[in-house]
Amino acid sequence: MDRNVGSYDLSKPLLHHVKLRTLTVAAALTVFTSSQGILTTLSQTDGKYLYDYATVPLLAEMLKLAFSMIMLWREERMNGTRSTLDWRTARLYPIPSLIYLIHNNVQFATLTYVDTSTYQIMGNLKIVTTGILFRLFLRRKLSNLQWMAIILLTVGTTTSQIKGCGEGNCGSLFSAPYEGYFLGLVSAFLSALAGVYTEFLMKKTNESLYWQNAQLYLFGVLFNFLRLVLEGGWQKVWGLFNGYDVMTWLVVLNLGCTGLLVSWIMKYADNIVKVYATSMAMLLTMILSIFLFNFRPSLQLFLGIIICTMSLQMYFTPPHLLVELSACQRDPGPALSTISIEKPNAAT
Amino acid sequence: MDRNVGSYDLSKPLLHHVKLRTLTVAAALTVFTSSQGILTTLSQTDGKYLYDYATVPLLAEMLKLAFSMIMLWREERMNGTRSTLDWRTARLYPIPSLIYLIHNNVQFATLTYVDTSTYQIMGNLKIVTTGILFRLFLRRKLSNLQWMAIILLTVGTTTSQIKGCGEGNCGSLFSAPYEGYFLGLVSAFLSALAGVYTEFLMKKTNESLYWQNAQLYLFGVLFNFLRLVLEGGWQKVWGLFNGYDVMTWLVVLNLGCTGLLVSWIMKYADNIVKVYATSMAMLLTMILSIFLFNFRPSLQLFLGIIICTMSLQMYFTPPHLLVELSACQRDPGPALSTISIEKPNAAT
Repeated sequence: MDRNVGSYDLSKPLLHHVKLRTLTVAAALTVFTSSQGILTTLSQTDGKYLYDYATVPLLAEMLKLAFSMIMLWREERMNGTRSTLDWRTARLYPIPSLIYLIHNNVQFATLTYVDTSTYQIMGNLKIVTTGILFRLFLRRKLSNLQWMAIILLTVGTTTSQIKGCGEGNCGSLFSAPYEGYFLGLVSAFLSALAGVYTEFLMKKTNESLYWQNAQLYLFGVLFNFLRLVLEGGWQKVWGLFNGYDVMTWLVVLNLGCTGLLVSWIMKYADNIVKVYATSMAMLLTMILSIFLFNFRPSLQLFLGIIICTMSLQMYFTPPHLLVELSACQRDPGPALSTISIEKPNAAT
Repeated sequence: MDRNVGSYDLSKPLLHHVKLRTLTVAAALTVFTSSQGILTTLSQTDGKYLYDYATVPLLAEMLKLAFSMIMLWREERMNGTRSTLDWRTARLYPIPSLIYLIHNNVQFATLTYVDTSTYQIMGNLKIVTTGILFRLFLRRKLSNLQWMAIILLTVGTTTSQIKGCGEGNCGSLFSAPYEGYFLGLVSAFLSALAGVYTEFLMKKTNESLYWQNAQLYLFGVLFNFLRLVLEGGWQKVWGLFNGYDVMTWLVVLNLGCTGLLVSWIMKYADNIVKVYATSMAMLLTMILSIFLFNFRPSLQLFLGIIICTMSLQMYFTPPHLLVELSACQRDPGPALSTISIEKPNAAT
């Protein structure tokens, strides 16, 4: 499996150096993440859920577990290998689920201080926190340009969410108690930590992806089951499929696929690729909503799309396609120094 | 006068390679452009002008002409030289004034189709059109990253101008007749053309800046005088100083200084530097307005400032400070290709 691309071909289009398979999976993740919001909206009847939405993540985890176990069985039969349980690694698999559990509670606490639109805006901070933890925890170096790209991605997604004139409640932004912003920041760090920890886990060993998935999702099923019981009691479990129709199953299937794609990205690509895919998905959802739900196209959405596209290019395009090759030989570069003045001039 | 900076010192801060003098003049232009809006607002009495604002540009042109002639006289006395009138060059000096005259009329026509806030938003297009004419007319090469920076500067200034919720009339954007957008585009091209033509003119010969200024401003005075007479008749000329007070003179002085700084930038730096200075000035005005006029700080202003700052760094920072030096030797670069997988894995 060749993951190094070697030298680039200047005649090839931008982004071409990114492994085609990674690009395909990232594009699929964008589409699935985007359709999650749309399917969820479509699964409502007269603006209400006839089923219990809390059951969806549990069923999705079960689906992912079942899929991974089937694939693992197939893989082992073909290769004649057998995955063995390594307790020193296995005990790390509940950690992402645990972080998400804490994150959910912090999220809940944050919402008691800030309104939902401020919460949504603050949610973009997880792009920057992912970059920070990616650097600190996984020790991956980013160039200055890549840092700028990450900041611009955060700014771009935020721009697309600016409340336009006449939209909802104004003036709430920047006016929440400071605990709200602090909790929002904690929430952004926890969300990033879960992602970065999962990447660490997936790349730690060269075990089969499906065997790693099976361990990860086993705890996913367990934690989601416990949550459902603790929050809604046993009657929620007995009435698991109450109100389910084809559209609800599509929501479950879609969420399951999204999870599997994220696992793949964590093992073979990285958190930053995931962050780009999900950010682009948010913009795609807004664009699709224009056609599906008569969402009004706004200037801020248009600007957000441009900013995020620029950010994507800045992050992934090989540097020599962004700046002149000769610029690398420490030439004076920018336009400022290329002014042609024939003779010195006493006037200045 | 050494305009080439040669090799960079990696230990120096970003932007350091830009000639200190250029940086100083650009910063001064930012401050003067920004204070123009603030002084103009402060020169009003109870929200109204007691003087005729149309007289301000004429007096500013006269001030610039007088200053340039004094400086020219000093310079010639010191150097013992004498500037001679070259008719083949001199006949080009009315052209910028002519372009501005046409621009003013197109501006007026545009405003009959679109409202002022749409007009203001479209005004940002002159950043991109300046880049295009800078490339086509002055044949200056820009790297892909610099083009992206120019687009982001346009997006950044536009973002800061997004109407927030509860602000003024909504829904007018994107709903004007298409003639309005066409005229807005023509206006953006004319504005850019005037700037690019002036740069061409200033750099065409190695004549003294003050001698070039004198010719340029002579036509400036002439055109502004004719405009005042044609629009307001002779009584406007006789009542030139009606209602003038100290603040009005400060407005004139400030506009004069701005013009002189622009001339300097056109000769010794370029249009892109000017575009950055005036864009930053717009943001500075908004920030100052928060303190001076109780302007409400908005999320869009905050985002706009980040975008424009990133753009500034992208455009002027030497490439090797943005990307790793080794990246220039065509290494795989981006994070995607640096995934460490110990052994090939059959799972993918």
